[in-house]
Amino acid sequence: MSDVTTTDLYEVTMALSYLREDMRAPAIFSLFVRDLPPGRGFLVAAGLESALDFLADYRVEREDVEEFADALHRPVQDLEPLLGLSFDGEVRAVPEGRLVFAGEPLLEVTAPLPQAQLVETYLLNQLCHQTVVASKAARCVLAAAGRPVVDFSLRRTHGPWAGLQAARLGALVGFAGTSNVAAAVALGIPASGTMAHSYIEAFSGEEEAFRAFARAHPGPVTFLVDTYDTEEGVRIAARVLADLRRGPGCAIRLDSGDLEALARRARAVLDAAGLAEVRIVASGGLDEYGVDRLVRAGAPIDVYAVGTRVGVAADAPFLDAAYKLVEYDGHPVMKLSSAKVTAPGRKQVFRRAGRPDVIALAEEDLPESARPLLRTVMRGGRRTCSRKHWRDARRRFQEDLADLPVSARRIHDPEPVPPERSAALERLTASVRADIDARPGSGRPVASTGTHAR
Amino acid sequence: MSDVTTTDLYEVTMALSYLREDMRAPAIFSLFVRDLPPGRGFLVAAGLESALDFLADYRVEREDVEEFADALHRPVQDLEPLLGLSFDGEVRAVPEGRLVFAGEPLLEVTAPLPQAQLVETYLLNQLCHQTVVASKAARCVLAAAGRPVVDFSLRRTHGPWAGLQAARLGALVGFAGTSNVAAAVALGIPASGTMAHSYIEAFSGEEEAFRAFARAHPGPVTFLVDTYDTEEGVRIAARVLADLRRGPGCAIRLDSGDLEALARRARAVLDAAGLAEVRIVASGGLDEYGVDRLVRAGAPIDVYAVGTRVGVAADAPFLDAAYKLVEYDGHPVMKLSSAKVTAPGRKQVFRRAGRPDVIALAEEDLPESARPLLRTVMRGGRRTCSRKHWRDARRRFQEDLADLPVSARRIHDPEPVPPERSAALERLTASVRADIDARPGSGRPVASTGTHAR
Repeated sequence: MSDVTTTDLYEVTMALSYLREDMRAPAIFSLFVRDLPPGRGFLVAAGLESALDFLADYRVEREDVEEFADALHRPVQDLEPLLGLSFDGEVRAVPEGRLVFAGEPLLEVTAPLPQAQLVETYLLNQLCHQTVVASKAARCVLAAAGRPVVDFSLRRTHGPWAGLQAARLGALVGFAGTSNVAAAVALGIPASGTMAHSYIEAFSGEEEAFRAFARAHPGPVTFLVDTYDTEEGVRIAARVLADLRRGPGCAIRLDSGDLEALARRARAVLDAAGLAEVRIVASGGLDEYGVDRLVRAGAPIDVYAVGTRVGVAADAPFLDAAYKLVEYDGHPVMKLSSAKVTAPGRKQVFRRAGRPDVIALAEEDLPESARPLLRTVMRGGRRTCSRKHWRDARRRFQEDLADLPVSARRIHDPEPVPPERSAALERLTASVRADIDARPGSGRPVASTGTHAR
Repeated sequence: MSDVTTTDLYEVTMALSYLREDMRAPAIFSLFVRDLPPGRGFLVAAGLESALDFLADYRVEREDVEEFADALHRPVQDLEPLLGLSFDGEVRAVPEGRLVFAGEPLLEVTAPLPQAQLVETYLLNQLCHQTVVASKAARCVLAAAGRPVVDFSLRRTHGPWAGLQAARLGALVGFAGTSNVAAAVALGIPASGTMAHSYIEAFSGEEEAFRAFARAHPGPVTFLVDTYDTEEGVRIAARVLADLRRGPGCAIRLDSGDLEALARRARAVLDAAGLAEVRIVASGGLDEYGVDRLVRAGAPIDVYAVGTRVGVAADAPFLDAAYKLVEYDGHPVMKLSSAKVTAPGRKQVFRRAGRPDVIALAEEDLPESARPLLRTVMRGGRRTCSRKHWRDARRRFQEDLADLPVSARRIHDPEPVPPERSAALERLTASVRADIDARPGSGRPVASTGTHAR
């Protein structure tokens, strides 16, 4: 099992056929999201760095060929045309952290057809998953309106790998920390943690538990106060903190019940005890909707911990994304059936301050004062610049967010800014469609933007 | 980064404190789902085999201690009490494939408190994710009513690891195959695959594409017919199949549009061409709801491919599961605050034919003709029997399903069978609650089921 065999079988059967037919001309595939999920005013592009790692390392080894043969119940020699195949194409992509909208290519691959096809499944997996989680996490940051948000999702993500990504994607959009130790250390994210109800229950009482915790942890501590009676728990925490002269950096955590009311009462108890600097952390089933409600209600909560719903992007756990062939051997191509029409040709997205994006053909001139979103990130199968840190992506995210209309940023019923299409792209789409319609049977268009050498 | 550091930080801070206080007495933790997600009449227990692999290998190594210290910004020596800690406890669990309901422990750990605490995050991650996906996949099998279902989810799962699990969990509940090559080969699941629209588009027409595919693949082939005009695509596929005398084992695939209407027209075209044995595969955003609608409408679809929505369990991507301390050092414990009251004590679930399950205390006598669901699967940190194959779990799933009431099996508005609680469990819960209420401050109950030696 390798990243190469972590693929849909059909990529292999198609690649085999392309090789047999000697169809190695350059193909351009465009990866884009057809429609934003309900409740999303924007998406945060993510997953590119993992995708590039995959492409840079892609090479079909002997074991992979044996696995392919095994899956297809065919002799290994039938699969040998694939042996040694690596990815030596070009990739243009939207850098991580940039905001993107429906129909805008997140990534375009230009490579000999078999290569470009074989990498489809893995690229979709990475970009879909990571963009979905980053976009949900970004909304939590917006809802928290400047208050720190931390990631507590590891226990509910779809496996440990998804947990690592959730921590990274949270950091990318501005989270202040993660509970995930491995992710924190590997990625340079502050680690965050308190105590569980089980900890309190293992002691003969809350006071004993809090005192024992403070003995083991000389630095700032956070006491979980809602194991039995929450208000009483806050009083006990306040007493212990005051007694130990541990105020600054310390906190109490509320994990259940009416978080707004409990936070108000907790704040009053802490303030009365002279512990104005002790912060209140809230957790328990929160996502952007819960955080937004608490922030708008003016709940005196200082830190929001989000887990389950954010780590799995519970209300929108997938994207309607596609990896579509848009040009082969110099010919623009498109799919026509049903509602899923795809626009042909190599594309660029131009971002304009204060106006919708324009999806255009790649070779079009830059509209005045517009920025192209897709950058060349790989040539000849090698990255054109070094692997980017999530901090770089965070900077881009914050830049883009500053320009995003309020209607797209809002938590409830956000309205994405639909991109426009350039006149040249509309013309090419109409022309390819007319060519397909004019053919006697179904087939590839006759119109060409290049040389048809097959 | 290791499985040991793939944990919430608080497990580490708690464990450190337990060790400092010499709290190494046996703790019992119970992992259960508080409530079934909406739209679920049952859950399929899954994730146990991965969880046991994790526990059997658990050992805090020097690098783990260093990572813990790094995350906590403390000197490595402060974390050294954790060095070498492994899991040598007992695990009782519901085997994979069994149906479970709200409140029923999926797994109970009995181990010295620090060990039992440290493994919490990973156990929850595995059991939640896998149970969620298995339960969704099981409903697809029910909806398909005997027709084969195959897994096409890899491009949308939350990472490649989740894709591997989705393939396994599909097989566990009866799927006929997966598109995931790595999963198919590693797990002995039939691999399934056809061709993408891009394949058709790369040729000058559908007929050329189908013929080329057949040249590369001498065995049964499946032609994707909806790239341009679906009905015309079916006619072309029929012509090529008839011409090549390739009927048996072959299929056409519909991936968009009105699948019911298109399947009827496709069936008519194929039958008219003398290709009654050519099957129709449907895909495209299907889950149990889509499959159920098509099956009920009598659509002539032979194979259902489900992907996106099933691989991420789109309508219920997480479980409200908890890993709760229910006994420490012989004392039953429970959490009281808000609505999240947990029942104390070591438990057993008894399954009775034709009647609801009974959640009881572990030491209670078996009600007549009832079967205990939790089995001892690990003792002294070692499995009590070998790792089970997904085929064993499939057998259990099918057994349990045969006894499940129709109201819990149905696709729309299913009604789970709520378990009962034994009188002894109710008595213990009331007694622990009364003890907590009677205490001057919040604290652990005085009532004991064993020796309190701390």
